[in-house]
Amino acid sequence: MQRLSTSDADFAERFAAIVDDRRESDAGVSDKVAQILADVRQRGDAAVRELTETYDRHRLDWRIPASECEAAFAALAPEARDALTLAADRIRSYHAAQLPEDRDYRDEAGVRLGARWSAVDAAGLYVPGGNAAYPSSLLMNAIPAKVAGVERLVVATPTPDGVVNPLVLAAAHLCGVDEVWRIGGAQAVAALAYGTETIARVDVITGPGNAWVAEAKRQLYGVVGIDMVAGPSEILVIADGQSNPAWIAADLLSQAEHDPSSQSILITDDAAFANTVEAEVEALLGQLATGERARLSWQDYGVVIVASDLLAEAPALANRLAAEHVEISTDDPEPIFAALRHAGSVFLGRHTPEAIGDYVAGPNHVLPTGRRARFASGLSVLDFMKRTSFISLTEAALGAIGPAAVTLADIEGLPAHGTSVKVRL
Amino acid sequence: MQRLSTSDADFAERFAAIVDDRRESDAGVSDKVAQILADVRQRGDAAVRELTETYDRHRLDWRIPASECEAAFAALAPEARDALTLAADRIRSYHAAQLPEDRDYRDEAGVRLGARWSAVDAAGLYVPGGNAAYPSSLLMNAIPAKVAGVERLVVATPTPDGVVNPLVLAAAHLCGVDEVWRIGGAQAVAALAYGTETIARVDVITGPGNAWVAEAKRQLYGVVGIDMVAGPSEILVIADGQSNPAWIAADLLSQAEHDPSSQSILITDDAAFANTVEAEVEALLGQLATGERARLSWQDYGVVIVASDLLAEAPALANRLAAEHVEISTDDPEPIFAALRHAGSVFLGRHTPEAIGDYVAGPNHVLPTGRRARFASGLSVLDFMKRTSFISLTEAALGAIGPAAVTLADIEGLPAHGTSVKVRL
Repeated sequence: MQRLSTSDADFAERFAAIVDDRRESDAGVSDKVAQILADVRQRGDAAVRELTETYDRHRLDWRIPASECEAAFAALAPEARDALTLAADRIRSYHAAQLPEDRDYRDEAGVRLGARWSAVDAAGLYVPGGNAAYPSSLLMNAIPAKVAGVERLVVATPTPDGVVNPLVLAAAHLCGVDEVWRIGGAQAVAALAYGTETIARVDVITGPGNAWVAEAKRQLYGVVGIDMVAGPSEILVIADGQSNPAWIAADLLSQAEHDPSSQSILITDDAAFANTVEAEVEALLGQLATGERARLSWQDYGVVIVASDLLAEAPALANRLAAEHVEISTDDPEPIFAALRHAGSVFLGRHTPEAIGDYVAGPNHVLPTGRRARFASGLSVLDFMKRTSFISLTEAALGAIGPAAVTLADIEGLPAHGTSVKVRL
Repeated sequence: MQRLSTSDADFAERFAAIVDDRRESDAGVSDKVAQILADVRQRGDAAVRELTETYDRHRLDWRIPASECEAAFAALAPEARDALTLAADRIRSYHAAQLPEDRDYRDEAGVRLGARWSAVDAAGLYVPGGNAAYPSSLLMNAIPAKVAGVERLVVATPTPDGVVNPLVLAAAHLCGVDEVWRIGGAQAVAALAYGTETIARVDVITGPGNAWVAEAKRQLYGVVGIDMVAGPSEILVIADGQSNPAWIAADLLSQAEHDPSSQSILITDDAAFANTVEAEVEALLGQLATGERARLSWQDYGVVIVASDLLAEAPALANRLAAEHVEISTDDPEPIFAALRHAGSVFLGRHTPEAIGDYVAGPNHVLPTGRRARFASGLSVLDFMKRTSFISLTEAALGAIGPAAVTLADIEGLPAHGTSVKVRL
């Protein structure tokens, strides 16, 4: 953990280093992933079968039947079933309100113009196996796709040694996933993108994964649609000295416990409060089952910044960081929120811990990381839809705007363009 | 040109081959582009200077002053100035109506939820030099960025041997572009993405370019936002036998004249009409200054399909092709349009040639190619904006939905997540 003060002589330099620090690596898998993609594209099922035997050590049928997912849901403890259902309902409701409106109008020149949105035909969701298999992540990917109107929703998830994660199957049932396949890694992403004899190809692939999965998606960008390249999780907490230090410590560690390369940053205007939070972090680290992972993250990437004035300084720093999650723990978070330009999701006020957004608030928890909130947004129904624009001219409307098109075709040296308008005038 | 009939015994097979045919190649520049990106990232201006001397053969100052753009606009023929201005006004008006609305509401559980859209800080537009420098393309990229609210809009355009294209400068002036730099190729894209001593980095890069530029953008996806990977242009014309064959021939060639790897496809239900269109294409090819390019495209990639029933067959074929441009030349295009699911932009009725959309209709002419309309949309203001979701809970609202979050954190094995909620309950 490093501690800075905005009044330090070297603050600008140290802060810039934090902003520029990349906690991502492609782990050198780029060439190997390219080979797997080419292999699956060419040999289909045979390639996927061999890679699954090698990496996941099983020769089971890939398809997990819907009945197994239904049974997994029925077998959940009632409390878990209710919590997942509440989360699904709230996520569905938030995303339904995101559905874009079509446009169809006639302008002053008599030209009919518009745009029509439609869902992609098929979407594939990658769900990691083992430790990182989170049912909440399946909900956050599957529900926007279903709300968008995707007819065929496919999950690919590895089952190392054939062992399934019943929570993932239960969540797939709850979300109405149409197909679940027990395959993983770059080979699963390739099978979804190119299709094989057994698995029909999809149009969009989303969902988290390890370095192989992330690199496979990156390489397939353009062959299919993908969600944003995702890096380690981040939280920036902007807290005044009246905040409860134990609450803030838990918030910081709720990101740190994801991964040793996660990042938690506190900006406060109260140096004594910063000290107390640091002590609370230490205390909580000792109690957490995830303490080892969280300690590495806090040690290597944790940052505490003491500012002289929160409202004057925190928004500018936050905009440079463009963090995935920003918490504002003050009595009136609005002035700081109004000055924030770049953030994935913002958590306003003392009773809004970030974790509430991971599970049950409703907005998506798939958010831009690694300073990408400068230009990227969280996952939404739009990631599973596309827009078709349309134009309709009467003879009179063509007469009004056609001559200008002929002039422009002419200066651009495209005579067939010009001719196609001229012959109709 | 190949001709098919939906009643041919081998139609399904031949049509599938057309759908799968990829007219794109990275021209083997992937490794060289990676080297250029790394070089510019490390050495900044020095690398850009050397590459510009090598490829563009000039050592001029990179910055083209605003006064030069203004002068280029003033020097336009009045007809060209009026046509560009009409186009800009119509494009601006269509895109202004695309601006997304923010959301801010409180739901039944008392939870305040919302989403706030904002523009990226800076956008870079690549504008090709030489033959492929189209002022209309600058308009189609710059205007959505300005409408979105981008404060700093930067153009990079190569000037081989130092020669500028005055039409590009004039269009830059008309659109209010803030900086114009005479650099090109992968080195220009790298300079925009990483920044150099002279050029500040941007957040989003859009615009067409050669294989080097396209590959540079692909490799920088995630470092910055980019528009969709673009391939050769395409048009699908669905026309009944009452259409004017000379009009349809001009429409087909208006895409063919872009590039030898462009693709023009006609679907009609009238074999005699198809013959006449083919003859008109031949006649027009002989007259066009771009005839050589257009002939190669028509020869290698042109397709004429005779269907037995347009309404019954054309939409399904069109959805497989997912073409960039789809023209429907019938008296009542609505039934076919209603059945179209995948298309970049649709041109309805006999008086709506595709070229009208390239210039003055208003919708964007940057559209998904290579079957990508299955999952991608044309350029819009959204490509220059991002959405920040937000959540605000009162103590009571946290009491209502917090326990479910604790349950889910528990089953996912993330105790700090659970703690951050529990301590507040």
